[in-house]
Amino acid sequence: MKIDGVPHRSIQAEDGAILILDQTLLPWRVEWLRIANAGAAAQAIRSMQVRGAPLIGAVAAYGLALALRDDPAALEPVAAMLGETRPTAINLRWALGRMLTVLRPLPEATRAARAWAEAGAIAEDDVATCRAIGAHGLPLIEAIAAGKPGRPVNILTHCNTGWIATVDFGTALSVVYQAHDAGIPVHVWVDETRPRNQGALLTAWELGAHGVPHTVIADNAGGHLMQHGEVDIVLVGTDRVTRRGDVANKIGTYLKALAAHDNNVPFWVALPHSTLDWAVADGVSEIPIEDRGEAEVTHTTGLLPDGTPGSIRTAAPGSPARNPGFDVTPARLVTGIITERGRCAASEVGLLGLYPERALAA
Amino acid sequence: MKIDGVPHRSIQAEDGAILILDQTLLPWRVEWLRIANAGAAAQAIRSMQVRGAPLIGAVAAYGLALALRDDPAALEPVAAMLGETRPTAINLRWALGRMLTVLRPLPEATRAARAWAEAGAIAEDDVATCRAIGAHGLPLIEAIAAGKPGRPVNILTHCNTGWIATVDFGTALSVVYQAHDAGIPVHVWVDETRPRNQGALLTAWELGAHGVPHTVIADNAGGHLMQHGEVDIVLVGTDRVTRRGDVANKIGTYLKALAAHDNNVPFWVALPHSTLDWAVADGVSEIPIEDRGEAEVTHTTGLLPDGTPGSIRTAAPGSPARNPGFDVTPARLVTGIITERGRCAASEVGLLGLYPERALAA
Repeated sequence: MKIDGVPHRSIQAEDGAILILDQTLLPWRVEWLRIANAGAAAQAIRSMQVRGAPLIGAVAAYGLALALRDDPAALEPVAAMLGETRPTAINLRWALGRMLTVLRPLPEATRAARAWAEAGAIAEDDVATCRAIGAHGLPLIEAIAAGKPGRPVNILTHCNTGWIATVDFGTALSVVYQAHDAGIPVHVWVDETRPRNQGALLTAWELGAHGVPHTVIADNAGGHLMQHGEVDIVLVGTDRVTRRGDVANKIGTYLKALAAHDNNVPFWVALPHSTLDWAVADGVSEIPIEDRGEAEVTHTTGLLPDGTPGSIRTAAPGSPARNPGFDVTPARLVTGIITERGRCAASEVGLLGLYPERALAA
Repeated sequence: MKIDGVPHRSIQAEDGAILILDQTLLPWRVEWLRIANAGAAAQAIRSMQVRGAPLIGAVAAYGLALALRDDPAALEPVAAMLGETRPTAINLRWALGRMLTVLRPLPEATRAARAWAEAGAIAEDDVATCRAIGAHGLPLIEAIAAGKPGRPVNILTHCNTGWIATVDFGTALSVVYQAHDAGIPVHVWVDETRPRNQGALLTAWELGAHGVPHTVIADNAGGHLMQHGEVDIVLVGTDRVTRRGDVANKIGTYLKALAAHDNNVPFWVALPHSTLDWAVADGVSEIPIEDRGEAEVTHTTGLLPDGTPGSIRTAAPGSPARNPGFDVTPARLVTGIITERGRCAASEVGLLGLYPERALAA
């Protein structure tokens, strides 16, 4: 997507290195970081200079490819090292596994070139997946637009599901970008998404950089806007969808789904197939939700008056906090699911319709 | 209620002056401000050193009484001046109207003493009202406690409805304080209440100061906690209740009511009768909701790293924001209403049961 009119991807391969957008500096500074070896790739993942499951996987793959240029025998130890950078990132291990499967059978002399090509293929696959998600979501926006000619389609979103969490396009925001680029007037209500404010910081930044009209709102505001007809559709991403269509996503998603349901606003969830967890049926009872650190709630990060990024205390001194990172939206509140293969109902029947090979596997 | 074990009211009359708790410094500093004339009272209201409808009314009444000590002829101009300090505060004008009704018929020489007594009566009436609200809510907590012996009653609340918004006790928090003081183990989930964070700043502070166990949560977290049985009851205040029982309250209240309804968690609203608006029936369509300034959303206030209160930018530079201050929770989502007269259903029949004189008036 674009930054001030210029197309970018969140990871850009050049000769002997990759460039990544340092996301710890966003939205305050746009700075590209040159990663020329596996150690730098690992550090970028660990420090969250890159974030978002697909992007992390691609950066790890490139990190492995860079290591093989220096030492073709380094395949296994470097893959292991990169795999440890974010212990819970399934996509990271998936990408490294794909690299190992391709590279292990090869003679060492040919590994570096093949690794570079395979890392590129992982990145291209992600772009294709995200582009397809957007294309399958686009008809939803077109249909709403057709019903209100001359007026923008108001889309509410939560957290960040944009191109900077992937290699390009994003998931839920891919729908938004493709509608905008197709000339459909869209306007996005951006939930700030406390406690980490990924909406107000990252989603607002990337929508603004691409030129998409948007407005930041407190997480508390969405229900009121829906009551008054100011939201046409809710589009969110997800961290895990169960085979019955329950949706684990950033904390607060469930509250927006309830409000959408109460006001007959369609609520759609966009995801790549890698996010589907066929082993889990009931999301609320089966998916463990991690409690994150208290400081994310008792403090808020932003731009300090002196112009540097930092954090201030925003809760009474001494008061403890609880910080569940995710919640689960039951399938009954989800209008439908958008994947790279199409749209379906949030149900086992719906998902198996898009992924019939899963029925054969069962 | 108590601060570090010592009972306080948020306004304390002494000879020739009142002391108020400077709420612009909370929760970072506890500082009492001496108000000895009407100008200082007006300034304290204007600058929001005092806030909360009942408290503002009492401070204005005392301000008028202080003015009459200096100049018994100043009744009308000073009342007018005080009435202008917060143009939308109905309770402020109600309190000044009560003062004028009592004082106008009196000879000037007797006005100052009578005014001081009447201001005190306004404050005492508020304390009695808030105490009664708490007493009528207490059986709800007792009933829950009886069903889970040895474990705390988990109460979720939104915004600040505590003693510092009134003269003492508060409205919804009056129930909490009286349960706690009665020896019932309670624990309060405190919504931080973006964008102004009155929950994380003020509610958390006053609960901590009184010794009530509590935990601050992001506004996004309540639904998840309810899904997992961690909330026994939701208790909130309100800015206006319609005669059918629709509840206007701080933005985000509606989302919590939806989650409570979806999880069979009782949702109760506590208020003094002065908050009932018998002229309005349907809250969602009839109550205008003001949009407040964008900066409350794009920025967050707290304690800066240098130890001074201040504000940081917490949204992407250049992104606009929308800031509706309140929302309306339809009566169908409200389990019941608690007033100084008792409890009732959130309906015209329920409210008329507590206030039968309103039926006669219609």
